[in-house]
Amino acid sequence: MDRDKLLELITKAVIEELQYQKRRVPVGVSARHIHVSRQDLDTLFGKGYQLHKLKPLMADDFASEETVTLVGPNLRTIERVRILGPERKRTQVEIARTDAVRLGVNPPVRPSGDVDGSAGIVVVGPKGALNLKEGCILANRHIHMTPADAEPIGLKDNDYVTVRAGGEKGAVLYNVQIRVNEKFDTEMHIDTDDANAIGVRCGDLVEIML
Amino acid sequence: MDRDKLLELITKAVIEELQYQKRRVPVGVSARHIHVSRQDLDTLFGKGYQLHKLKPLMADDFASEETVTLVGPNLRTIERVRILGPERKRTQVEIARTDAVRLGVNPPVRPSGDVDGSAGIVVVGPKGALNLKEGCILANRHIHMTPADAEPIGLKDNDYVTVRAGGEKGAVLYNVQIRVNEKFDTEMHIDTDDANAIGVRCGDLVEIML
Repeated sequence: MDRDKLLELITKAVIEELQYQKRRVPVGVSARHIHVSRQDLDTLFGKGYQLHKLKPLMADDFASEETVTLVGPNLRTIERVRILGPERKRTQVEIARTDAVRLGVNPPVRPSGDVDGSAGIVVVGPKGALNLKEGCILANRHIHMTPADAEPIGLKDNDYVTVRAGGEKGAVLYNVQIRVNEKFDTEMHIDTDDANAIGVRCGDLVEIML
Repeated sequence: MDRDKLLELITKAVIEELQYQKRRVPVGVSARHIHVSRQDLDTLFGKGYQLHKLKPLMADDFASEETVTLVGPNLRTIERVRILGPERKRTQVEIARTDAVRLGVNPPVRPSGDVDGSAGIVVVGPKGALNLKEGCILANRHIHMTPADAEPIGLKDNDYVTVRAGGEKGAVLYNVQIRVNEKFDTEMHIDTDDANAIGVRCGDLVEIML
């Protein structure tokens, strides 16, 4: 083999390896949680109530110390559902389908923020209850990425990809939304059903299949 | 195209279609449940107690009217866990990882019957409690097949296959055990985590990928 040919092959192999490294992203498992509007926080915790930061999350998000109780139309409950701050324009309850079965609700799979026509649910706080007509969703599988991580592997905001996880409960997950923003950390977010089904935990690496 | 060539192509297409039909199997979702030995049934429900059939299942199995309560080492509980009959040689508790997280146990993924060294758990019945040192597992993904369904697509007992499910929470599941027996109905058994993660219900069809 001549020198040029060899160089070309080595270059190709190195690029593939670098791309493979770029295609591996850590998992963050999203337990059931709720985002609340200013108005709904007033109802749940009292007028002007301020959430207390428990733990910083991606971008400006944080887990708050505050939790609520969900009540389904079957009158069954899930307690200690954490509020994520800061407040958002619309209240949004994100649960796994296992939770939905327990509560007797049938939320659609949606990207965050897309709550029109989603499921209703009752949310109870220490100062009052919300009778949400919509707002309860199963969050879609998605990967937060920085532009620096997305660009080299040819991905842009709102692309959809397939992701592979190894292990004895290994699986390929379809319909994974890519979300690109400078403020993000690169991390795949899946709910507890997906995580438990495929046997991954926070920090485990999965592979974006191009 | 000559007549022989055409005939060959048609034959091939028909065989492929028939094989595809054979590769589609219905799903049965296994909720958490327990199989009990004669001795352990004595402990839980009283000496000589006979299970009452609620609903026939595959082969000679049945869902019984009787349920038990599971208690984890964290002292949290899951109530109304159904006993499947008839009695087996060894008691076996099958839960989903979501249940395992709740109970604070870490059961291995195992084929049914393979409980050596699996997780311990406390099982409580109306007449007494079992302090199981082992017996709690996450049942592996598996497909029960009749020989008539397995043979045409080249599968035999204890093969492992990959299975694909469509839909917005679509996925491919690896490491699915094939179990072949005359007494079986052809059906893929997955736990509630897998079912909820990939958005399938009892009776939905999934595809064995060869």
